[in-house]
Amino acid sequence: MTTKLVVIGGDAGGMSAASQARKLLKDDLDAVVFERGHFTSYSACGIPYWIGGAVTDRDALIARTPAEHRANGIDVRLRHEVVGIDLDRREVVARSLSSPGGEIRESFDQLVYATGAVPVTPPWARERGAGVFGVQTLDDGAAIHAWLDSADFEVRRAVVIGGGYIGVEMAEAMVQRGLQVTLLEKSPQPMRATVDPDMGALVHEAIEKQGIDVRTDAHVDGLDLRDGRVRGVVTPAGTLAADIVVLGIGVRPNTALAERAGLPLGPTGGLVTDLRMRVCGDDGPIDGVWAAGDCVQTIHRISKRAVHVPLGTHANKQGRVAGINIGGGYATFPGVIGTAVTKVCELEVARTGLTSAEAEAAGYAFVTASVESTSRAGYYPGAAPMTIKLIAEKRTGLLLGAQIVGRSEAAKRIDSLAVAVWNRMTVEEMTALDLGYAPPFAPVWDPVLIAARKATDAVHAAG
Amino acid sequence: MTTKLVVIGGDAGGMSAASQARKLLKDDLDAVVFERGHFTSYSACGIPYWIGGAVTDRDALIARTPAEHRANGIDVRLRHEVVGIDLDRREVVARSLSSPGGEIRESFDQLVYATGAVPVTPPWARERGAGVFGVQTLDDGAAIHAWLDSADFEVRRAVVIGGGYIGVEMAEAMVQRGLQVTLLEKSPQPMRATVDPDMGALVHEAIEKQGIDVRTDAHVDGLDLRDGRVRGVVTPAGTLAADIVVLGIGVRPNTALAERAGLPLGPTGGLVTDLRMRVCGDDGPIDGVWAAGDCVQTIHRISKRAVHVPLGTHANKQGRVAGINIGGGYATFPGVIGTAVTKVCELEVARTGLTSAEAEAAGYAFVTASVESTSRAGYYPGAAPMTIKLIAEKRTGLLLGAQIVGRSEAAKRIDSLAVAVWNRMTVEEMTALDLGYAPPFAPVWDPVLIAARKATDAVHAAG
Repeated sequence: MTTKLVVIGGDAGGMSAASQARKLLKDDLDAVVFERGHFTSYSACGIPYWIGGAVTDRDALIARTPAEHRANGIDVRLRHEVVGIDLDRREVVARSLSSPGGEIRESFDQLVYATGAVPVTPPWARERGAGVFGVQTLDDGAAIHAWLDSADFEVRRAVVIGGGYIGVEMAEAMVQRGLQVTLLEKSPQPMRATVDPDMGALVHEAIEKQGIDVRTDAHVDGLDLRDGRVRGVVTPAGTLAADIVVLGIGVRPNTALAERAGLPLGPTGGLVTDLRMRVCGDDGPIDGVWAAGDCVQTIHRISKRAVHVPLGTHANKQGRVAGINIGGGYATFPGVIGTAVTKVCELEVARTGLTSAEAEAAGYAFVTASVESTSRAGYYPGAAPMTIKLIAEKRTGLLLGAQIVGRSEAAKRIDSLAVAVWNRMTVEEMTALDLGYAPPFAPVWDPVLIAARKATDAVHAAG
Repeated sequence: MTTKLVVIGGDAGGMSAASQARKLLKDDLDAVVFERGHFTSYSACGIPYWIGGAVTDRDALIARTPAEHRANGIDVRLRHEVVGIDLDRREVVARSLSSPGGEIRESFDQLVYATGAVPVTPPWARERGAGVFGVQTLDDGAAIHAWLDSADFEVRRAVVIGGGYIGVEMAEAMVQRGLQVTLLEKSPQPMRATVDPDMGALVHEAIEKQGIDVRTDAHVDGLDLRDGRVRGVVTPAGTLAADIVVLGIGVRPNTALAERAGLPLGPTGGLVTDLRMRVCGDDGPIDGVWAAGDCVQTIHRISKRAVHVPLGTHANKQGRVAGINIGGGYATFPGVIGTAVTKVCELEVARTGLTSAEAEAAGYAFVTASVESTSRAGYYPGAAPMTIKLIAEKRTGLLLGAQIVGRSEAAKRIDSLAVAVWNRMTVEEMTALDLGYAPPFAPVWDPVLIAARKATDAVHAAG
């Protein structure tokens, strides 16, 4: 018997689910994907590098094209927006954006909701002028490219609003394009949601060294729009001239459609799922309705709280888990621990687990320890400095979180710390970890081990 | 009351113990260290890079000089060999190598045995000619340098005997010095003790690409010595001309002195200790007698077997643990999991846990899975290929071991796998790991996750 699968959203979460289910059920699966944009399975995280020029080819960001998915037996319908879900009749209502006309009704046995996220839009940005961009979709990226390359006017000054990792990456991209860049962040430090203030200060410094004008504690009153395009950003400290404005204020789950269909949302605004990525309604999991990606909330394994972490890596995993379950297999997505890495020019920034503020908010009592070390043996060419900060629970010494700021070969050291957090290791046990050592790769005491030693001392000292 | 500590051996294990104990007990510790050579606390692992020229300064390999240790209140006596330990009278007997004379007797409350390892010496190498070198001590390194720089003759051809990681690193160093190099390995592949044959083949290829003449299944009958210096290596296939011969055949624990003192040795020839690094005699742990470093055996946490793993990183940890316990604190060394990384020209090689052969020998039934991926998102500049192989127990799916061969940014990925092995993760749980993702650092599915997925499939398929 053929199973009819409808997927809403053709990026990481949705296409992973469709591909995985198709792999398991083969021709017993009839899969239709509605995608509002022009692309499928692309790397939104790669957009800043495409804008900045490190990646020269847009198509390189596309992991699998609609044609490839179709060749795999998945009916991808681009430029189609789903406008309604009827859970009782088990059908979705869609319409074409390219050739407007009647509604398309498509019935389903299994539904995957994978609509991603939408930018948080402050009141002043609700009516956007030309030259104001979000960075969520490949279509956004294409629009930024077109604007920067416009023959009608010169784009010299950029204002990036929001100093989270997307804002910082886009600010860097704008510098690489030769623009004068101002970065506005409403909190006292860039990447405030990512790292503690002491680590954030290192990031702040690195951004400024690139020639970016960083303004923290910055407020935005509105945009200066003239003749249909943006000319500046209005702040209490005056208007900042701008030929392009990039919004990196954050995103929220794109769940309006789900809400209209009567699906309850969690405290983060994201859809709630069970471990197998089945959507939970008011009366528990709903048979045959799944969700994956930036539209869902998940559980943070350390804070035990519901969190919304829009990241391609989670979307892919969640989609795969949904697809395996749809295909009759068994897989679960057991939550996240908040791992993230990014690069600010040559500075690498990484974190996992909880920051100090998050640990505080979760109710933990904790100690912290920071150490400075190097990526390689100090005497080996290319040894680069890095700072590692650990956060450990008082008494138990459980590793609650870790942050790294450094030069080359720093950021991915977060992975060993992430696996330690995942496995609820204590910092004391971590001092014995058998990590890889050779002079070209680490000092004889890896920075992670030095940090674990210092955190152990801090736990003992705190009693 | 002052504690009298005597340490035998002034490198990683011994000096870590002395420094740590001194840190805790301060002036209540009276510490004497006997060191046979000219140096303390140096990086033996750095010697190949000093020979090859990547490290230009010998002193850079010295983490802490005798003078620095002395300034820290530790009485370091260089060029002193301990020739006897009297456990009943609690004293050691030493003699000076630089100014021969009477014996020195030094009593102790606490003794740390940290004599390191000695090269395995086949019969034909027992009478070494000039120009034949081991690579254990900084003195060995200095002797190799002096030989290569000799004004009396030209050194053009090198034969390195033994294709383990030290042999491979030394072969590369000799190439960097402009020598013609032949590497002889008795088994069918280089790095046989480190990685499986399929991964070893990749290493073999990389070594040959450097212009090194690699001969596997090679037997050595003896050395051709003339006029007091080596001229060749005699093999069943003829004599290989050589102006320098480097022995990388392996090492064994340097425990002759311990044996004479009546301390029992384990099956590996190393001293047996408890978790706190107290030496175990026939009747259990011996109060006040400790050991650390390349002279001890330890437990492999996955095979559960006694193993001898001479590595600076373990020596440092063991020394620190002994020192903390001597100082009245509490610390344990809970064994190793066989993590190792090395570099062959641009090729990075890493392993943790058990190889297939080791898993077999330990009695595990297992499956393997190999994947090829890249260090960064495929579209990001500098993305480099890597191969990851996982070994997982049948039925349970427990990760037993992992191997990586790749280009840049490959080797240290072993750390996350090492922490997974340490924590007895299953490959299935590993597919959900929250590892760092951003295009400059990883594909959206990190190679470690792709490998975990494939290994999970293999475990399921094996039933």
